[in-house]
Amino acid sequence: MKTRAAIAFEAGKPLEVMEVNLAGPKEGEVLVEIKATGICHTDEFTRSGEDPEGLFPAILGHEGAGVVVEVGAGVTSVRPGDHVIPLYTPECRECASCLSGKTNLCTRIRATQGQGLMPDGTSRFSLDDGTPIHHYMGCSTFSNFTVLPEIAVAKVRQDAPFDKICYIGCGVTTGIGAVINTAKVEIGAKAVVFGLGGIGLNVIQGLRLAGADMIIGVDLNDDKKEMAERFGMTHFINPKNVENVVQEIVEMTKTPFDQIGGADYSFDATGNVKVMRDALECTHRGWGVSVIIGVAPAGAEISTRPFQLVTGRVWKGTAFGGARGRTDVPRIVDWYMDGKIQIDPMITHTMPLADINKGFELMNKGESIRSVVLY
Amino acid sequence: MKTRAAIAFEAGKPLEVMEVNLAGPKEGEVLVEIKATGICHTDEFTRSGEDPEGLFPAILGHEGAGVVVEVGAGVTSVRPGDHVIPLYTPECRECASCLSGKTNLCTRIRATQGQGLMPDGTSRFSLDDGTPIHHYMGCSTFSNFTVLPEIAVAKVRQDAPFDKICYIGCGVTTGIGAVINTAKVEIGAKAVVFGLGGIGLNVIQGLRLAGADMIIGVDLNDDKKEMAERFGMTHFINPKNVENVVQEIVEMTKTPFDQIGGADYSFDATGNVKVMRDALECTHRGWGVSVIIGVAPAGAEISTRPFQLVTGRVWKGTAFGGARGRTDVPRIVDWYMDGKIQIDPMITHTMPLADINKGFELMNKGESIRSVVLY
Repeated sequence: MKTRAAIAFEAGKPLEVMEVNLAGPKEGEVLVEIKATGICHTDEFTRSGEDPEGLFPAILGHEGAGVVVEVGAGVTSVRPGDHVIPLYTPECRECASCLSGKTNLCTRIRATQGQGLMPDGTSRFSLDDGTPIHHYMGCSTFSNFTVLPEIAVAKVRQDAPFDKICYIGCGVTTGIGAVINTAKVEIGAKAVVFGLGGIGLNVIQGLRLAGADMIIGVDLNDDKKEMAERFGMTHFINPKNVENVVQEIVEMTKTPFDQIGGADYSFDATGNVKVMRDALECTHRGWGVSVIIGVAPAGAEISTRPFQLVTGRVWKGTAFGGARGRTDVPRIVDWYMDGKIQIDPMITHTMPLADINKGFELMNKGESIRSVVLY
Repeated sequence: MKTRAAIAFEAGKPLEVMEVNLAGPKEGEVLVEIKATGICHTDEFTRSGEDPEGLFPAILGHEGAGVVVEVGAGVTSVRPGDHVIPLYTPECRECASCLSGKTNLCTRIRATQGQGLMPDGTSRFSLDDGTPIHHYMGCSTFSNFTVLPEIAVAKVRQDAPFDKICYIGCGVTTGIGAVINTAKVEIGAKAVVFGLGGIGLNVIQGLRLAGADMIIGVDLNDDKKEMAERFGMTHFINPKNVENVVQEIVEMTKTPFDQIGGADYSFDATGNVKVMRDALECTHRGWGVSVIIGVAPAGAEISTRPFQLVTGRVWKGTAFGGARGRTDVPRIVDWYMDGKIQIDPMITHTMPLADINKGFELMNKGESIRSVVLY
């Protein structure tokens, strides 16, 4: 079949919207009509050429929502008409990682996904001259129709709007999951979020959901304050206005009983390795947990004195918010529909596929929280 | 009163054994007759001058066992005749840290202890000319008699031999506690221990106690293999004999079902920041936990790519094995008396206080596992 898609032909070039060929789903695969897709920094990381593992040509996009149109042989968990969210972190429920109960990082199709291919080692997308086009993160939601492995779709309720829940396919789940699954924040905690972009806002609403007492946001841009407060931020620090952001957080979190100070939990949503260090070091001696969410530039390294860890701080990271996609994503859709979490104010722009490059521009200029392409 | 003690007058100089003055216990303090004390690398770290926070003159030593001789006003938890192990990590059970339930790092007397003083800001030790001598880690077990805060002694059973259980005051608890309290290793785990000195051996026996399936030891010295096997090591790697120790561990831990590989837990007992990085990176994607035990040189920093954490590895550290001294140390003494853990083979040398500098020499040459001074 033919489908309209935005193609990344070359690193650093704008995407080109055109018709491409899409082969039907093979065994264990499903054909999905994408109804809406967010544009994420990770797409830009690859489009721009920064991603050392980026492959071209490719159909980017990994934050979508749509409807199953056709299923391949052996598919049992979804059928045509089901509403689904594609999962760049699949959940096979059979591999050593899934069965460990300790991680969401399913490894069943990792090798081929990293090569931009379906599990059988081939691509379903091609140009008219036969040139194969790479899949991206196993999703390729910048195509109106796409093929996905069955284990890489989460079936969700039918009354949820595609143009909002597509964001659960990456940003919402990453931010909320970092709080709930990775840090396991408890009621009454004091937490800090570095970076108040889309991920940071979702960390903040995750903290509110978890019942944190103090939610400190840190950003170089004062304009981020208002929206962050709307999602639950209780205190704001602009590092430009304080001498030492770590010391400032330690002071803010002291109580008459606890004169040591420090955040119980911190989250880096900036991708800056120096900020990651601050995020660790501002946590409380003895039990502070710092979670890295942001993606750092290729080759960048984090560092600290081991004393920071020996005195009880814990350094960890999260991918897709530690969420098991097929199990946890439908629950997050329910939370949205029940009003437990907000998404609507974060979708600041929508556009047709033809204007997808405008979405990238808005993101690069910091003018959008999230742009969503509507098919 | 007078007591014989080994004094560190100056960084880098041998200790001098002589009589010093010891004032009696003030309110909340106890006078203890030390019966035996181990010599630990941390004592050497300070004696040598490497410790940037080292104070002189001081009476070093922090790994002792003895008998309460006299108690100050208000002391209720111990009385004369009680057998005790001094605690460089006290347990007040009243401060924000103790009551958090999340850490053993009691902060009640941290400030004065760091200054080499008792909680009232003075020293009990002095030279004949009146010069005060600093306490060390709140313990100063290189003195036949010493004064300690009540919250810094663990009362233990009376039938346990001082010359063995003194080692529980630091090395044994640090190694076993790192496994049990900090890493919380579960039955069937695969674990790696870097550095097979005294701490490493105790990590190994902690892993055996915890029911680990695979206990891999890593050391540059083949001679360490035999003793480590005696404590439970199942596999040995000499980094000199393999191309890449991280890759070697990943390969060793693969199974037909799990082709990702990597240790579930790793422990650094070397203090070398490059080894700490290997220890993190050899752990399993998705859930590996790496625990830093070793004390790094002043200013040294650990580093890694944040991707290591984002893909599920956790970096943490431990001090005194995460043990709450007054609560956990008596239990570890019981484990020794019940034959659950071994200490005797690790006490390779004993000597009178007069020969304490020989103990330091043996340690520095790597000829001892543990030397114990018997009063």
